[in-house]
Amino acid sequence: MSSKDKTIYFTRGVPPAEAFPIQQLQKCATEVLEQHSSTVLQYHPAIGYLPLREWLGQKHGANPEQVMTGNGSLELQVFLTEILTSPGDVIFVEKPSYDRAITAFRKKGLAVFSIPLENDGFDVDALEDMVKEHKPKFFYIIPDFQNPSGITTSQAKREKLIELAEKYDFWILEDNPYHYLRYRGKEIPFIFSTRRAGPEKVFFFSSFSKLLSPGMRVGYLIGPQAMVEKVAKIAEDSYITPNMLSQGIVFDYCQRGWLEANIARLKELYRPRLDALVSALETHLPQARWSKPDGGFFLGLYLPDAVDIDLFRKKAKEIGVILSNGGGFFAEGTSDAFLRLPFCALSSEEIREGVRRLGSIIE
Amino acid sequence: MSSKDKTIYFTRGVPPAEAFPIQQLQKCATEVLEQHSSTVLQYHPAIGYLPLREWLGQKHGANPEQVMTGNGSLELQVFLTEILTSPGDVIFVEKPSYDRAITAFRKKGLAVFSIPLENDGFDVDALEDMVKEHKPKFFYIIPDFQNPSGITTSQAKREKLIELAEKYDFWILEDNPYHYLRYRGKEIPFIFSTRRAGPEKVFFFSSFSKLLSPGMRVGYLIGPQAMVEKVAKIAEDSYITPNMLSQGIVFDYCQRGWLEANIARLKELYRPRLDALVSALETHLPQARWSKPDGGFFLGLYLPDAVDIDLFRKKAKEIGVILSNGGGFFAEGTSDAFLRLPFCALSSEEIREGVRRLGSIIE
Repeated sequence: MSSKDKTIYFTRGVPPAEAFPIQQLQKCATEVLEQHSSTVLQYHPAIGYLPLREWLGQKHGANPEQVMTGNGSLELQVFLTEILTSPGDVIFVEKPSYDRAITAFRKKGLAVFSIPLENDGFDVDALEDMVKEHKPKFFYIIPDFQNPSGITTSQAKREKLIELAEKYDFWILEDNPYHYLRYRGKEIPFIFSTRRAGPEKVFFFSSFSKLLSPGMRVGYLIGPQAMVEKVAKIAEDSYITPNMLSQGIVFDYCQRGWLEANIARLKELYRPRLDALVSALETHLPQARWSKPDGGFFLGLYLPDAVDIDLFRKKAKEIGVILSNGGGFFAEGTSDAFLRLPFCALSSEEIREGVRRLGSIIE
Repeated sequence: MSSKDKTIYFTRGVPPAEAFPIQQLQKCATEVLEQHSSTVLQYHPAIGYLPLREWLGQKHGANPEQVMTGNGSLELQVFLTEILTSPGDVIFVEKPSYDRAITAFRKKGLAVFSIPLENDGFDVDALEDMVKEHKPKFFYIIPDFQNPSGITTSQAKREKLIELAEKYDFWILEDNPYHYLRYRGKEIPFIFSTRRAGPEKVFFFSSFSKLLSPGMRVGYLIGPQAMVEKVAKIAEDSYITPNMLSQGIVFDYCQRGWLEANIARLKELYRPRLDALVSALETHLPQARWSKPDGGFFLGLYLPDAVDIDLFRKKAKEIGVILSNGGGFFAEGTSDAFLRLPFCALSSEEIREGVRRLGSIIE
């Protein structure tokens, strides 16, 4: 079936099947069961597998005691939120932001406010004004190739954010699963690495879902040790032990040096897909605007103001293009004609065909 | 080192390293990655891996839509509790009961009352009186080889429980991870299987932690479909996707018919340990009383009333026997000189030596 007849799904941000290094994972599974079964098949403290926590700590300039590995990063974030906030507290996210994070914060009874995004990250003045007014407990930010906008926060804004967090005493929750998937341009250090000597205000979250496999569920949190211990206690009361077999396999994979090679491979796989998306948008949807991402999984598209977004999605569906409801990415629930276009799980041909169809709706 | 010089840990209920079928798990991991990588390495609906849910459904007379697989059964229980209760509600547990369950219920702000255990299960009259008085949302019960007492609820009491649950309208949470580890006597059907045609009042929890591996974290919940869907929504908001690789491996293991053979092997491994424990208690601690379990991981020991339990634990530690604080198993927090003795992770020789040392404290 050619892509001309296919339904094209611009919906969830998942890796394509060809992203998974199957034979390597088979080797690692066999090896870790051979060498470490009495650890990875057994109950274990909730903070996670020590060799993996050491490896991550070394990578991020942290002690293993500051690193917790769990069943994906979202759940660690849910647990941390339980510690940092009480119902009714104010927290900030970017506008737009990751829909599952917004949902999780709402479920804890938090008041979620959002800070407008510019092409180089959050609007600094808006953030400072809103911090003064609302005194948030934390600012949840995805600084690299943001989900859903694709925008990257500049180095200057990262530094400014640390300054504001210290001045006004709020936490920064840095969620950074896409950092290593940069297809062009120069790497910008993590906010977590931008910390100065002063009080530590940053919690760092990332995961192996985008670099290796989502179904293995290995995510991690790095932060002040005393807080990480509290998160581990909450995790213990919930699931006792994280998935040790997955953590063992992931560590074996990393310590063989395979992760870096896999990242290089994924970049070659995904870069042409992003290029195909941008060039198709230039050709078929010149009326729209978007910020061209330098990496990650998503491009955020703003349709012209005159376009009725619900009608647009309906028409798209009729011609075989499925689009996410952009409203979920906005704490306010309205989407400003925003669409998130994930590009990693589609071939370049599918991307071109999908965007061509979208363009035909507006013409 | 002979067991004479060793510290002996009668603490956590974990399987011994020799319980893990390493080579079989290697085969299953290789196979599932070969055949099903695009499912088990990918994001997936939170309700869990369909082939495993079908397999479990068939085993328990339920549709796959009624079966949810997650990262261990405790967390599923935490999620279900969120649906069934509001802070301040009353729920019942057995006296004593599983400490982690009591902790989880308390964390939800529930009032936890406990129903005394007799040698064949909960005290029926006490339950009925307390149900009338407190109108509990549910009764959490571990009917087979209970943790921590080792007691098994009789068939008659299981039937009576269903009757009471229907009459007084409360849910039954049946937590049954030890059922298949019966070392003697006749199997008693699950409470879940004892349901009659009327309204369904039972949620069933179990896991592969005791039959295969705790570190793989595969547990399951079976219940009314509409409720299971709600639990899956809560899970999705927390961890998006359960550990799919583990679930794939566990399913592969089960459908090869290996689980049954492994259970037979584990029974041969654990039965002599239970026998060693009972015979050592008869020899060295005849002053104490206990209910001889027919299976599972634990024997519950009541020391003579005159014994100061804290002093006893302290003295035991001095002579190299580490004992759990029994108080955690009692919703009321006091332990009535109760000790939980897990026997699966110790050799018969260690068990005999440990009990000999305990006996020397009282003599």
